[in-house]
Amino acid sequence: MSKRIYNFNAGPAALPLPVLEEIQAEFLDFKGSGMSITEVSHRSKWFDDVINDAIARSRRLLNLSDDYQVLFIQGGASMQFAMIPMNFLPDGQTADYVDTGTWSTKAIAEARIQEKAIQMVASSKDRNYAYIPKQIAFTPGAAYVHITSNNTIKGTQWADYPDTAGVPLIADMSSDFLCRPLDIAPFGMVYAGAQKNIGPAGVCMVIVRKDLLDRVPEGLPSMLKYTTYAAKNSMYNTPPCFAIYTVQLVLKWLEETVGGLEKMAAANREKAKAIYDLMDSSSFYSGTADADSRSMMNVTFRLPNEELEAQFVAQALENGFGGLKGHRSVGGCRASIYNATSLEAVQALVDFMRTFEETSR
Amino acid sequence: MSKRIYNFNAGPAALPLPVLEEIQAEFLDFKGSGMSITEVSHRSKWFDDVINDAIARSRRLLNLSDDYQVLFIQGGASMQFAMIPMNFLPDGQTADYVDTGTWSTKAIAEARIQEKAIQMVASSKDRNYAYIPKQIAFTPGAAYVHITSNNTIKGTQWADYPDTAGVPLIADMSSDFLCRPLDIAPFGMVYAGAQKNIGPAGVCMVIVRKDLLDRVPEGLPSMLKYTTYAAKNSMYNTPPCFAIYTVQLVLKWLEETVGGLEKMAAANREKAKAIYDLMDSSSFYSGTADADSRSMMNVTFRLPNEELEAQFVAQALENGFGGLKGHRSVGGCRASIYNATSLEAVQALVDFMRTFEETSR
Repeated sequence: MSKRIYNFNAGPAALPLPVLEEIQAEFLDFKGSGMSITEVSHRSKWFDDVINDAIARSRRLLNLSDDYQVLFIQGGASMQFAMIPMNFLPDGQTADYVDTGTWSTKAIAEARIQEKAIQMVASSKDRNYAYIPKQIAFTPGAAYVHITSNNTIKGTQWADYPDTAGVPLIADMSSDFLCRPLDIAPFGMVYAGAQKNIGPAGVCMVIVRKDLLDRVPEGLPSMLKYTTYAAKNSMYNTPPCFAIYTVQLVLKWLEETVGGLEKMAAANREKAKAIYDLMDSSSFYSGTADADSRSMMNVTFRLPNEELEAQFVAQALENGFGGLKGHRSVGGCRASIYNATSLEAVQALVDFMRTFEETSR
Repeated sequence: MSKRIYNFNAGPAALPLPVLEEIQAEFLDFKGSGMSITEVSHRSKWFDDVINDAIARSRRLLNLSDDYQVLFIQGGASMQFAMIPMNFLPDGQTADYVDTGTWSTKAIAEARIQEKAIQMVASSKDRNYAYIPKQIAFTPGAAYVHITSNNTIKGTQWADYPDTAGVPLIADMSSDFLCRPLDIAPFGMVYAGAQKNIGPAGVCMVIVRKDLLDRVPEGLPSMLKYTTYAAKNSMYNTPPCFAIYTVQLVLKWLEETVGGLEKMAAANREKAKAIYDLMDSSSFYSGTADADSRSMMNVTFRLPNEELEAQFVAQALENGFGGLKGHRSVGGCRASIYNATSLEAVQALVDFMRTFEETSR
């Protein structure tokens, strides 16, 4: 028997155990093909079934209308930071960006590198990104508004998405995609690197409103145009088959085992509440995010000093809890509790945190 | 027991069975981490060991000096078609391209889309790409010369690489990388989408001569600059961990089980010879490539008519031989016999081809 730890990694992160077991079981012979999923042609019926099922499941989970298309693109969210302005922001127009932390800042930088005209319309940098800005004055007629839905490093999340008065919202949902139901209507595009909530590293899911594809300029390299992926069901060239296959199985687990996004959200709220309640009742653990901006996915917290934080992370590891060290850019501690992290794992962590507090005082 | 077929897919393609078995065995608990390789942080010692071992093995297999760096990039060879001129061909300079089939043509198209000044210095289009051009007049002082080392669709391969009189050679080796020893000296860069000879789809290995990195212009998006990958050991953002891990295991198999590239080449020559000898002694099977340009990796052939070809592919499949249909753009038949395809599989195919010929006459 393999021994599995409680995995609180920020990404790549925990995947549902039944998904891993299914991959393992059919790894030498995928669906009777006599081949591994890694050996099957992407032009085969076997792989068509995989990618089309992944798309169908995401459409059902999110109630997507025919106005939206689901794409799979390589290069992670970072490649999207570059592709979004390249494809959707023509010269002479402007786009709005909200800066809520590291990943927002990188998205803004990639637009500026291309000398695109963008406005940073709000930022929470003044308080080290501890909150999500409110009452933002968006630019009327902007090409789009870009936000980061959940800030993995800072532990904040948009509780509600802002009203952009009809300007298409584009959201990096890498770290909270499918953690709760989503009304797609205000969104021009949603994208998510898979390695946090929906799969392994190596693929980014993109949901794009088809009318935005009309903006894609001629003259871009094929692999940098959304239209290339849209025209070929994400198979203009060989897609990252294994990553897409794993995403498909995670989506199946979400639909069939969890029972959809309402139930997933209820479970995620319960998990997050367990840790935040402990923090709120303790003077030992202190959260870094404002209460109304707290993330359901990444709980960031500090201990009284850095020495205790180092002891906490080390003792946690010895007790089978991995990934609790905060991002190297901010320090402290972080528990990432994505969809695949069980309530049992979170409760075990809360118990450990209580014990650590008692023995450290 | 799972039943495995003889896999002659053009890509994604057969992987060594011991590699697949190792992945399967440790899929729920990677190296005692208590996590799947798909759940391990890319910033962990576990993954550092994976990527660094993959790099060290490729350096040993190819005797790479410190002048070269090994990178892993997403997007397949098609992304490289765009990145090469973007990074290495400044305005005011020109680059040479040799057109030997579909993939060369695409590489040329991606340079032209960017309005880069390139010369197509040779092409074998006049005879449907059945040969590799010889005695090419390269442009003195060109920024680089781009070739496609092996033409998967047309079944041709450069037996020897051309003398470019010091101009850096850049080769797409997606379908014959590590099939034989390589003198890296004339090359400025070599790249290979993994899904044919070295791993699953989802990662492209790039070997670049470091002095070329000095050409990379400011102002490119981060994910499109080779320098971004070179500066961060291919981990500026989350890399495609599972694909890199599989590549690492294939390289280990190449070094430790096969015994290096001389032995791999000998095995590949023997496999290819078995099929070409049958074709040369038969009036039923006819090769499509000129004898001196034949590929060791993709053996393309025709039968007397398309009806027989369809029967051949169908009967082969019934007998456990997959992937023998030619590329949809050219028709006919094709046996892709990459590194991981065993001599036993090839001999079984040759026996089947003989039997099919006898029963079809």
